[in-house]
Amino acid sequence: MVHYKLVYFNARGLAEISRQLFHLAGVEYEDHRIEDQEFAELKPNLPTGQVPILYIDNVQFSQSTAIARYLARKFGFAGKNTEEELLADAIVDTFKDFIESFRKFVVGVLTGESEENMKKIREEVMRPAVKTYLTYLNKILENNKSGYLVGNELTWADLVVADNLTTLITAEFLDLKNEKTLGEFHRKILETEKLKEWLEKRPVTRF
Amino acid sequence: MVHYKLVYFNARGLAEISRQLFHLAGVEYEDHRIEDQEFAELKPNLPTGQVPILYIDNVQFSQSTAIARYLARKFGFAGKNTEEELLADAIVDTFKDFIESFRKFVVGVLTGESEENMKKIREEVMRPAVKTYLTYLNKILENNKSGYLVGNELTWADLVVADNLTTLITAEFLDLKNEKTLGEFHRKILETEKLKEWLEKRPVTRF
Repeated sequence: MVHYKLVYFNARGLAEISRQLFHLAGVEYEDHRIEDQEFAELKPNLPTGQVPILYIDNVQFSQSTAIARYLARKFGFAGKNTEEELLADAIVDTFKDFIESFRKFVVGVLTGESEENMKKIREEVMRPAVKTYLTYLNKILENNKSGYLVGNELTWADLVVADNLTTLITAEFLDLKNEKTLGEFHRKILETEKLKEWLEKRPVTRF
Repeated sequence: MVHYKLVYFNARGLAEISRQLFHLAGVEYEDHRIEDQEFAELKPNLPTGQVPILYIDNVQFSQSTAIARYLARKFGFAGKNTEEELLADAIVDTFKDFIESFRKFVVGVLTGESEENMKKIREEVMRPAVKTYLTYLNKILENNKSGYLVGNELTWADLVVADNLTTLITAEFLDLKNEKTLGEFHRKILETEKLKEWLEKRPVTRF
């Protein structure tokens, strides 16, 4: 049996989708959560000095999205053919582009930007980015009709987007009362039995 | 036969790797290069308002990296198994992270930043980023020994990195005289017969 070890901080962050995939697939793995001290020790031997790292039988792989895509393909959550995989990949890349603008907001929160500046970031950077992103998602869901973003089964793109929608709700950028299609989507994904199980049992962390 | 149409500006930019893959595979496609006017007309009907777009038999797909990965897989340049594909994906993602810091430099050039500020961006942002990136690549090449980044055949990761090294040389961030391993890699990839052919025949554009 393959031995998987996923190394990341005690946070959801960039490891959460991979953890969800392991749980959904029912595949055993070592969910190794590190503190700053261990990270400092590991860092010189990491490919780019960053985590998450996935060890597959002691072979080290970096980059969170590449890791999640790999697990999705191994476990059958990447799409049923190469065109579905392309669409799932494109959705995840669009999410990543969106997250770039979200980063400004998060940095602002963490560095204690003034209320005035935060309001500016909210209105001038975030609102338009959220709008474009949600329009994109709505259009895909309306075309696809299965309730999933890709094809008619759950893919890692659904996990990525549902997780991010939860973040957007918490940060008050999204109210699903005003978003019928996205609301149904969010509910459908979060009600996936194995995912629900994970969301209930996962360690509670701030990020 | 599948009909492929790749829509992008008359620039290498985010479409170049896909064009290289079409040429390497000897697969016919429509290399549709648009001007600003046509882009403005297309924009409202593009998934995220951006190009490149790949049409596969009239079905529209967005996101340059997802498109290139798809073509690489279709044409046999993605790696020989899922672990090789994971490594290729991780290398491409590391390139993309690196490019984020490069963007500051490019924006500086395009917006006519003062010489003083450009020097600061060069020394404080670019130099350390370049160093980390090249160390990462060197380590992979030294471990792999085939002369390619992944396995023992050409993959799209080689194309992405070789193309970027050319850019770094042009921007004077890299002198291959000081980089034996990377110099050999760059030469090897650029001497790939079909790639050489494309580099000689492709339209000459600034970016």
